[in-house]
Amino acid sequence: MDLKNLFDNSKKYIDKDIQVEGWIRNHRKQKEFGFIDFSDGTCFNHLQLVYDDKLEDFDKIQSYSFGSSIIANGKFVKSEGKGQDYELKVSSIELVGDCPESYPMQPKRHTMEFLREQAYLRPRTNLFQAVFRVRSVVAYAIHKYFQDNNYVYLHSPIITCSDCEGAGETFQVTTLDLDRVAKSGKVDYSKDFFNKKATLTVSGQLQGETFALAYKKIYTFGPTFRAENSNTKTHANEFWMIEPEIAFCDLDQDMDVMEDVLKYVVKFVLDKCPTEMEFFDKFVEKGLIDKLNKLLKSKFNRVTHKEVIDILKKADTKFEFEPKYGEDIAREHEKYITEYFDGPVFITNWPKDIKAFYMRLNDDNETVAAVDLEVPGSGELMGGSQREERLDVLKQRIKDMDMDESSYDWYLKLREYGGCKHSGFGIGFERLIMYITGVSNIRDVIPYPRTPGNCDY
Amino acid sequence: MDLKNLFDNSKKYIDKDIQVEGWIRNHRKQKEFGFIDFSDGTCFNHLQLVYDDKLEDFDKIQSYSFGSSIIANGKFVKSEGKGQDYELKVSSIELVGDCPESYPMQPKRHTMEFLREQAYLRPRTNLFQAVFRVRSVVAYAIHKYFQDNNYVYLHSPIITCSDCEGAGETFQVTTLDLDRVAKSGKVDYSKDFFNKKATLTVSGQLQGETFALAYKKIYTFGPTFRAENSNTKTHANEFWMIEPEIAFCDLDQDMDVMEDVLKYVVKFVLDKCPTEMEFFDKFVEKGLIDKLNKLLKSKFNRVTHKEVIDILKKADTKFEFEPKYGEDIAREHEKYITEYFDGPVFITNWPKDIKAFYMRLNDDNETVAAVDLEVPGSGELMGGSQREERLDVLKQRIKDMDMDESSYDWYLKLREYGGCKHSGFGIGFERLIMYITGVSNIRDVIPYPRTPGNCDY
Repeated sequence: MDLKNLFDNSKKYIDKDIQVEGWIRNHRKQKEFGFIDFSDGTCFNHLQLVYDDKLEDFDKIQSYSFGSSIIANGKFVKSEGKGQDYELKVSSIELVGDCPESYPMQPKRHTMEFLREQAYLRPRTNLFQAVFRVRSVVAYAIHKYFQDNNYVYLHSPIITCSDCEGAGETFQVTTLDLDRVAKSGKVDYSKDFFNKKATLTVSGQLQGETFALAYKKIYTFGPTFRAENSNTKTHANEFWMIEPEIAFCDLDQDMDVMEDVLKYVVKFVLDKCPTEMEFFDKFVEKGLIDKLNKLLKSKFNRVTHKEVIDILKKADTKFEFEPKYGEDIAREHEKYITEYFDGPVFITNWPKDIKAFYMRLNDDNETVAAVDLEVPGSGELMGGSQREERLDVLKQRIKDMDMDESSYDWYLKLREYGGCKHSGFGIGFERLIMYITGVSNIRDVIPYPRTPGNCDY
Repeated sequence: MDLKNLFDNSKKYIDKDIQVEGWIRNHRKQKEFGFIDFSDGTCFNHLQLVYDDKLEDFDKIQSYSFGSSIIANGKFVKSEGKGQDYELKVSSIELVGDCPESYPMQPKRHTMEFLREQAYLRPRTNLFQAVFRVRSVVAYAIHKYFQDNNYVYLHSPIITCSDCEGAGETFQVTTLDLDRVAKSGKVDYSKDFFNKKATLTVSGQLQGETFALAYKKIYTFGPTFRAENSNTKTHANEFWMIEPEIAFCDLDQDMDVMEDVLKYVVKFVLDKCPTEMEFFDKFVEKGLIDKLNKLLKSKFNRVTHKEVIDILKKADTKFEFEPKYGEDIAREHEKYITEYFDGPVFITNWPKDIKAFYMRLNDDNETVAAVDLEVPGSGELMGGSQREERLDVLKQRIKDMDMDESSYDWYLKLREYGGCKHSGFGIGFERLIMYITGVSNIRDVIPYPRTPGNCDY
């Protein structure tokens, strides 16, 4: 029986004989008693197994070491001890797989760096046990939100010969034998698997737009890749993104959805993972739960990029980077703005020159209908835009940005065949997990992170 | 308002003024009336828009062409016409985006090959509208099943330097400049992004096992890649897989889960997508719904590979390939066996020489605890195995298969650190969609399929 089911239905199982399978997380031995801190990974709570020397196997059981897998039978009873409501009065314990003293995950404090090196064992620690369960629950919350709201889930392609942003460092995908390429002295893409140069996707948005114009509301949720050579706490080279796209939707309605989905997901996790969230609040980010509850109650602010620069210029703060009207804002500016508004802020209408070609040009001819959501403590959490639906304007933007129009043939045709205003946004899944758990390094919210020079497991 | 909400709550909206946004799927014009077959893609059902010449814009509305996007206002009423229960008595229609006569998706019969070339428009046809919505609903059903049953969703890595099967043709991932490689005459992996050769994953199973030994029950659901140069109806080079992995689970319990999840998903789709399923039953595979209902009621058969060969050898059928005890079975054999049992068949205990190194060796020393699920009409739908948990046996298997033990360091250590019996299986997501929809070509169940020489969009 899963501990999750046991604790969820404790009244049903009280004073009943049950069997559980899992691992020894701690083992306290006394002369006539033993206490095993037992976990099976189906929930954050552990079960205390209590055994005494009336058991024939008492000495054997006392020899079972930390990390071992066991099958335990016994009666599930109310606990008279402190620290737990229930415990298992053991009738038998079978050792399934033992665990040597060389086991790296001994019950002591390990550095995060050490745990990263032991990525295949770290989900057995309390912190990572909580992180990766919350990651799973957040993923499910996202699916549930969009499915319940009539969105179709699109698997946009991973290998692609289009490149959404028209920029960005990409990974190449090939079946060419590189040794042979080196020997032959030339690269012949007609011999490559797709007969041309292919890369890993940086975004499924353009393909997402094609489906939004058939289903009205779609979302993607899949891996994306950037070959950026940056070793920061917030960059990984393989990460998951959610990219909703909505037809007949302008930037304001887009922001409504962004706010709604974020609140939904946060509430879902607080409801479903209370013990994990308390753990994060206690050991990872003090005040985490308050922060999230405050988010739920807040109405997100909406200001333009110009207003933001106005505020920053008037600020009684010496910034490292001077805020400028036509330019992007820095991390310190984001921080100031979320503190200024004391809550989440949508910053809209960004200078066109620093944003992508597909964003809708505003009437001022200087800004585009783009939006970034900034949240206190974490900076940018989502980014979106209304898409340029006017064919002539879109073509001009492509020309102005020195891009190759012929690569966007099907994308442009979408504007001709029953086109309509539409908007969408992207959620960096790992950034969201970091925000919700308080974990500050992206390497610690990805099961097996890929960073420059690191592709272990 | 979404048509989905409108039809789900038709009583609430009857005789109310509403607004809908979507596309003209057909337009019948009469002298004093017009009928627009309208769809917004949020459900398979269309809404009939009825307008008459009392409207000021009557002539203008009559000019709106097939494929155009519109916003329609009017009263939602019971229909007196045949073919629909409700209709919209139009008060106004705004043309949002028109659609030229050159629009490729004219309302006539197109070949599947033509529609594949127009992959970005084909979800606007009834068939693909249904296929990709069902794909989305099946994906959700899978998440819901596993989440409701205490599984943790694992994002196993996409870029990897391990290779699960120890074989298989893989795509290489690189940031090396191939032109420079050609010019320099040598391949220097120390200059590549991960400082070594990296490929796209063919399976997340091995990483999945690491998480199963921390969470007891996990599943992956992500893209996988095979660089096979085969142009068949059932092969794509990029496809999605679900790979559950369960600790303390033997092959029999593994089959219980396989049967349970398949029935759950089939029932979920029949419940949630009745109109789509009726469409497939009528136009794609006659008898589809009966086939699926029969599956739901059946108890899956369980036979060994040896028993299967016995049956095939006794069969009163001339096979192209002779069935042999130590060998794999052919498509024709699968077909015979599912017909013989008149239902789904689990074939277990396969010859070890044709199966992967990680499958648990049976006591006969000749077979492994592997299982394939064969279903009538579609052949193999899932495959799984109990994993070899005995370190010495596993090491011997790796040696016997001439594999490099050092590449499996962490995988082997899992057997040392509180190891236990565990099992898992893989579901080819596209094969499942083909089985459920009756669509016979894998290119038609993937939004943007990748096949040899084809990486469009």
